[in-house]
Amino acid sequence: MPDVRIVLVGPKFEGNVGAVARSMANFDLEELYLVDPCGIGEDAYRRAKHGSWILDGAAAVGTLEEAVEGCFLVAGTSGITTKGDRNYARVPVPVREFAQSLSGYDEKVAIVFGREDIGLFQEELNRCDLLINVPAGESYPVLNLSHAAAVVMYELFQVGHVPNRPEPAERLEKDYMFGFFEDLLDAIDYPERRRGDTSVMFRRMMGRSIPTKYEYNTIMGVFGDASKIIRTGRKWG
Amino acid sequence: MPDVRIVLVGPKFEGNVGAVARSMANFDLEELYLVDPCGIGEDAYRRAKHGSWILDGAAAVGTLEEAVEGCFLVAGTSGITTKGDRNYARVPVPVREFAQSLSGYDEKVAIVFGREDIGLFQEELNRCDLLINVPAGESYPVLNLSHAAAVVMYELFQVGHVPNRPEPAERLEKDYMFGFFEDLLDAIDYPERRRGDTSVMFRRMMGRSIPTKYEYNTIMGVFGDASKIIRTGRKWG
Repeated sequence: MPDVRIVLVGPKFEGNVGAVARSMANFDLEELYLVDPCGIGEDAYRRAKHGSWILDGAAAVGTLEEAVEGCFLVAGTSGITTKGDRNYARVPVPVREFAQSLSGYDEKVAIVFGREDIGLFQEELNRCDLLINVPAGESYPVLNLSHAAAVVMYELFQVGHVPNRPEPAERLEKDYMFGFFEDLLDAIDYPERRRGDTSVMFRRMMGRSIPTKYEYNTIMGVFGDASKIIRTGRKWG
Repeated sequence: MPDVRIVLVGPKFEGNVGAVARSMANFDLEELYLVDPCGIGEDAYRRAKHGSWILDGAAAVGTLEEAVEGCFLVAGTSGITTKGDRNYARVPVPVREFAQSLSGYDEKVAIVFGREDIGLFQEELNRCDLLINVPAGESYPVLNLSHAAAVVMYELFQVGHVPNRPEPAERLEKDYMFGFFEDLLDAIDYPERRRGDTSVMFRRMMGRSIPTKYEYNTIMGVFGDASKIIRTGRKWG
């Protein structure tokens, strides 16, 4: 993964700066640069929560040029998607596509967010190597600054972080479990002609839910007990 | 796409409710249910911006049960990912996987967000058909309520919305452009032995940037003019 620096240009509300610091801590980012920011006080720290150390370490500078020094790639964010493709400098890349293009990239990358009201100025946009955006609805596509930043950081975090899912069941466990299900159908004298379809349906349902080993074993136990009780007529055998 | 209802259970800060309403407007959602909420006043409306109509239409109810009435599927959000898989009721599905599983689904789905501090109670979690989460860093995985909601809504929006990119160039235009590039190498007497490699490198660079028709045509014009000027020695011929 690239080494990501977050740059906020001219933020006007300290609450937004604090919220961005919290999201940075949530998504394992550390480096925050503020260009000509508002005052950073109590409200920013209240919103930053456990990300307050990122506010403590933030660099305040006077220009975008200083904020992106040492960065190999500078990505600016734009809430506006132009319809035509004539103004090529304003054609943004959707953030998911951008994040995926960075996998395997390990240079320093700056992600630049503009002012809450008027975004980035033309000369600031021109300094960016590319523009990215968060695809949203046409009727109101402009996200709040810290929410746009959260989505961008979320997308960057997903690249290279495979979600930590519990261990799925293995083939053999699945087959055992389906065997127990069929045995249960047998125990309840389920109509022969419908057994095939019902077994397939149950297999499909399990397929969609991708159960874990633990879940398979638990369900297998339930079916096994039910069949046994039905067949023996005894609960405690 | 499913018909999505957003449910906030016991929100304590009206600013968060306003921020959620704004994100809903950003991602084309309309239906907001609030269970036993804090007062909704000036701060909520200030944060909602052009999503204030969603606050106007929000339903306040007393229990989660009322809030999810008529919903076919109820997805609860959890900031906690259990390490083991024993407590199967707390194994969350990453939000991207969940959003993708909903494509082609057109029933009503409720997405339930808990209190800012303590989330959802056990009986509320038990009412959910599944739990989803926003994968984040291990050191501080708990996002602010409205930021978690923004990421979830962003993922739901992406399903079925192919980003509106400008028209890419066609094969023929690309070949013309590479022809102009090779002609430029020729005009500047570029070393024969390096021409092949340099042409391939340029083709690869263009491949990665996926230029639009307009960009290809513009670059082609630049190369063409350059070659012509070099060969004729005249700028205005």
